Amino acid sequence: MLIRRLAVIGVGLIGGSLVRALRAVGEVGEVVGCGRGKPNLERALELGVIDRYTHQIEEAVQDADLVFLAVPLGAMGQAFRSMRDHLQPDAVITDGGSAKACVVEACRDAFGKLPPGFVPGHPIAGTEQSGVEASFAELYQNRRVILTPTGFNSPAALDKVERMWRLCGAEVTQMTVEHHDEVLAATSHLPHMLAFSLVDTLAGMKENDEIFRYAAGGFRDFTRIASSNPVMWRDICVANKKALGRVMAYYIDEMKALADAVNRGDADHLQEIFNRAKEVRDRYIDGILDSPE
Amino acid sequence: MLIRRLAVIGVGLIGGSLVRALRAVGEVGEVVGCGRGKPNLERALELGVIDRYTHQIEEAVQDADLVFLAVPLGAMGQAFRSMRDHLQPDAVITDGGSAKACVVEACRDAFGKLPPGFVPGHPIAGTEQSGVEASFAELYQNRRVILTPTGFNSPAALDKVERMWRLCGAEVTQMTVEHHDEVLAATSHLPHMLAFSLVDTLAGMKENDEIFRYAAGGFRDFTRIASSNPVMWRDICVANKKALGRVMAYYIDEMKALADAVNRGDADHLQEIFNRAKEVRDRYIDGILDSPE
Repeated sequence: MLIRRLAVIGVGLIGGSLVRALRAVGEVGEVVGCGRGKPNLERALELGVIDRYTHQIEEAVQDADLVFLAVPLGAMGQAFRSMRDHLQPDAVITDGGSAKACVVEACRDAFGKLPPGFVPGHPIAGTEQSGVEASFAELYQNRRVILTPTGFNSPAALDKVERMWRLCGAEVTQMTVEHHDEVLAATSHLPHMLAFSLVDTLAGMKENDEIFRYAAGGFRDFTRIASSNPVMWRDICVANKKALGRVMAYYIDEMKALADAVNRGDADHLQEIFNRAKEVRDRYIDGILDSPE
Repeated sequence: MLIRRLAVIGVGLIGGSLVRALRAVGEVGEVVGCGRGKPNLERALELGVIDRYTHQIEEAVQDADLVFLAVPLGAMGQAFRSMRDHLQPDAVITDGGSAKACVVEACRDAFGKLPPGFVPGHPIAGTEQSGVEASFAELYQNRRVILTPTGFNSPAALDKVERMWRLCGAEVTQMTVEHHDEVLAATSHLPHMLAFSLVDTLAGMKENDEIFRYAAGGFRDFTRIASSNPVMWRDICVANKKALGRVMAYYIDEMKALADAVNRGDADHLQEIFNRAKEVRDRYIDGILDSPE
């Protein structure tokens, strides 16, 4: 059994699905849940996701050989500080945060230096649903998990986290913290900004009731991600503001150039942009992403 | 039978689905297809969508009591000029163009004045597929069709076009040409600009192969509309450049404000925007659009 005792700090979609996947392959012993909300933890208990729970991180991590942190990015610092003096000497710590530099920094601040058991990670998976109720064992099947080793982690800790995700059916890759944050800013954080700001722009227009009434099907797909958790996204933006700010600046320049082409009715330039986008989208997205999902 | 002889200029998804829907309720007699590509028209014949075809608009509209124009917006002017001297005196003309001011203008230019038989229309329906092969009788079921009467059309022509779309299962509403173009710029044309420019921005980044590899599921939904027909969208942008340019300017301002909030790490401001967007999105989109589709 890979994990004898697992502490899950934040028992929601991400943490709950991890436990379900590990239970399905019989690779986890006791699971201790930790969180602030009692109803969610009670539900996790009823669903058999966790074996027991506590509201105290200090207590949850005692005797755990692996600690999985799935709290909002803004809560990582407090979580690291709470667990610091209560961990087993050989405990492995990993997380599911959508940005990595801020988590590494929070850990270093809390521990004084980066502990050898800490391996930052990011499963590229999720739905607009949240909470343990929405968790399921197959969430990570054929999904990518990016690990961003700190350079201070032990090889054994990295190996354990890699094996954990592979047991869940995920494809594990490694990249640097900085590169992770740039790639995710472009492929995930930026699209969320577009969706949120599109809906907010339309909501601010006069007669917005009528505008939404005539929104067609594609619009619903397009704005689905604007239903994502506002607190989580606030934290992601603050945590990854450097990389996200940079890619938003590129994007705004591109939109301005496109608006200029529209304003001057430059058919050739418009068609060139649209052709290129369609070609790239069809090639990469359908080729690369159709199989995993 | 509502339509004795129907001329469909441009036999693709939109025109083909209209014919299939009318045939399903037995409200159309002979259907004459018209287009440039022989293979598509031959396929339309094989599929039983059309009864015969011609490459000449002049010939197609002869004896037709209703002419349906489903050509790209940039081809509307030539189509109106070709049909002008060959129409039946009481022929009704309608279209499926995604912008309306340019179609009305093209018609006025071709005919010298707006003919009483002309009723501009826009079915808010479609997929990323195109061609007669993709057409199906249920495309317009519970979808909205917007008619934009010119003020010069006869009540009989308006009534015939309304009845035609109702027979296809659509919900027909009317608005002014200008208002239509503003609403569609916001709800359809702007989202397409966002999707095209997002994909083009990412494609322009170094290591774009890797970037697309880590794009998650939401990204695929989000960029699906970037696979739409580039020529059609080029024409829509040029045709509706006034309304689209205005709404793009609003949107760019909103994105700039959001980028500023990200850059200064303004958590409260970010959460306020995301909360508002999520609330509006959940309320309008799920409430209004879940039933029709």
